[in-house]
Amino acid sequence: MLTEWVDQECAGVSTAHRDAALARQAQLTKPAGSLGRLEHLACELASLQHAERPRAARVPIIIFAGDHGVTAQGVSAYPQEVTIAMMANFASGGAAISVLARELNSPLEVVDAGSLAETAIPGIVTDKPRRGSRDFSNEAALERKEVAFALECGRRAVLRAVAAGSPDLLIFGEMGIGNTTASAAIAAALLGVSAEATAGSGTGVDAKGRALKIRVIDAALALHGLTRSGISIEEVLCAVGGLEIVAIAGAMIASAQHRIPVLVDGFIASVAALVAVRLNPSCQPYLLASHQSAEQGHRMVLQALELRPLIDLDLRLGEGSGAAIALPILRLACALHNEMATFAEASVPDRA
Amino acid sequence: MLTEWVDQECAGVSTAHRDAALARQAQLTKPAGSLGRLEHLACELASLQHAERPRAARVPIIIFAGDHGVTAQGVSAYPQEVTIAMMANFASGGAAISVLARELNSPLEVVDAGSLAETAIPGIVTDKPRRGSRDFSNEAALERKEVAFALECGRRAVLRAVAAGSPDLLIFGEMGIGNTTASAAIAAALLGVSAEATAGSGTGVDAKGRALKIRVIDAALALHGLTRSGISIEEVLCAVGGLEIVAIAGAMIASAQHRIPVLVDGFIASVAALVAVRLNPSCQPYLLASHQSAEQGHRMVLQALELRPLIDLDLRLGEGSGAAIALPILRLACALHNEMATFAEASVPDRA
Repeated sequence: MLTEWVDQECAGVSTAHRDAALARQAQLTKPAGSLGRLEHLACELASLQHAERPRAARVPIIIFAGDHGVTAQGVSAYPQEVTIAMMANFASGGAAISVLARELNSPLEVVDAGSLAETAIPGIVTDKPRRGSRDFSNEAALERKEVAFALECGRRAVLRAVAAGSPDLLIFGEMGIGNTTASAAIAAALLGVSAEATAGSGTGVDAKGRALKIRVIDAALALHGLTRSGISIEEVLCAVGGLEIVAIAGAMIASAQHRIPVLVDGFIASVAALVAVRLNPSCQPYLLASHQSAEQGHRMVLQALELRPLIDLDLRLGEGSGAAIALPILRLACALHNEMATFAEASVPDRA
Repeated sequence: MLTEWVDQECAGVSTAHRDAALARQAQLTKPAGSLGRLEHLACELASLQHAERPRAARVPIIIFAGDHGVTAQGVSAYPQEVTIAMMANFASGGAAISVLARELNSPLEVVDAGSLAETAIPGIVTDKPRRGSRDFSNEAALERKEVAFALECGRRAVLRAVAAGSPDLLIFGEMGIGNTTASAAIAAALLGVSAEATAGSGTGVDAKGRALKIRVIDAALALHGLTRSGISIEEVLCAVGGLEIVAIAGAMIASAQHRIPVLVDGFIASVAALVAVRLNPSCQPYLLASHQSAEQGHRMVLQALELRPLIDLDLRLGEGSGAAIALPILRLACALHNEMATFAEASVPDRA
């Protein structure tokens, strides 16, 4: 056990509210089923929120940033200092997720969950057990207490969001040069596959760069004994984890424990979701997929989570941006469910 | 020639603005290409709008309604009076597109382009050459002058939208019990295929109902001689057209002539787009696909238009709803393009 709260059972979904939502959908002035997945989304949200009228109005976005020792192996297309520079860019409003948060009227919080920054960055919450993870090609990336700290970091962020006003949903994003490498390593270990299946181009390495990434990950899986059966999730996170990835997993579990659904972003957030579900399977119903990323390996992780994405637009930016771009679909699904007239209200003849 | 303005050439796209938009995308603080199709959308809009900063803020939605004589053959799951009842529902705010227009802050206009209504419906523009089309299983659906009137009806609606304030984009929707049958007939004639390839379940007929629909359409194609080669678009529209479908085609051409891109809705709107492109090929670049409908035949029509949809959510409602649901993606693409910081502005190191 990494930390006590992680195991606490999440509340079940409300089948009564789902049934009521399904019954309402059947009465709305449209051919039955003609709003397709938007109908299912509205009913799913109603059952998760235990609400007659599902809501996706208040949706805070929380970005967790971290650095990765494994970047020393040349696995990323960008230099490591980009992590810190981008945190400042988030805070000053120039990053993609900053623009999206403004457009969506979503509060944006940036948490330094483990960057190399030596001092606090203005506008950013610092909540880290150490500066960056260790290079997992040589040694374990994190100690157990650091993994536990990162899980707590995620939970603390959720508690801040809850205190600031009941969120209808939460979006968690990430920033961290090297974090597709750590995520691909975690996914390979958890799914029992080679890095060939989980490692992609990340921010944009070419075929040679991707081959290096795969070699580095597969060697680390062997070094840390992660290819044997019966490996624990804690062992995986200590060996090849990353602080922002673990923080997102903690945030997802805490969010589900507060009965707040999570709109899961792309590859890295989905790997964090896989970690969350392995740590606490009862959080699974609260995880909603947003998009199919262009990053290699995302499809496999979504399949393991039994999640079907809403959009597929070749996005591979991270930062929570794919979830943010999908959010309007949920909002419109809620508006349609809550505001359309019924056949009786509008005096429209139903089918025979 | 149906009516003179239809042939007027649409302005070409601005390659200078597209190149400038591409250059800007490369400088924004994100890995190159990581916003996938949103980057392309922003650049495409910039080139169509001849603008440095693409916009999708002001997007009026115009619904054209019409009735179809062919419903006498039992081709729809819903009774014909639903067309008029739904027009009233649009106007009073209870329909799906009414809810979406409010959420998207889009002006909504409903045009009776050819319903059976004997008197004007409050809140709805009446602009029709006759009440409903004729039953094309027995006779030609429309006369040439009625087709020309419907094209003008679409153009007049665009001119009203332009007069009310420069639209950044336009969305055209439809309502008309029986109009998937007319659309499937038009598509089959224009694409030279059997109704088997273009007729679907519409508002929800079962397999037996769909088989009837296919028989009715294929018989009509034979009756009107639409399976021979060299058939003109005018002949097709007179034989099996529908007033709201032709009105949308006219609106699309007029919109492109005003250099206003159109976000094309589902199956019926896409068939209207195919009509528009066959009447005036220069409007094609202004047609942007929104969604892949669940309606059989939509995929084939989109392929003929060389359009790739943005979303695929099993929608099959019509009313412009699929385009409306996709609109936030275009808006976010514009916001990201226009508001993100460049690497230089944010002092973020670019890749080596």
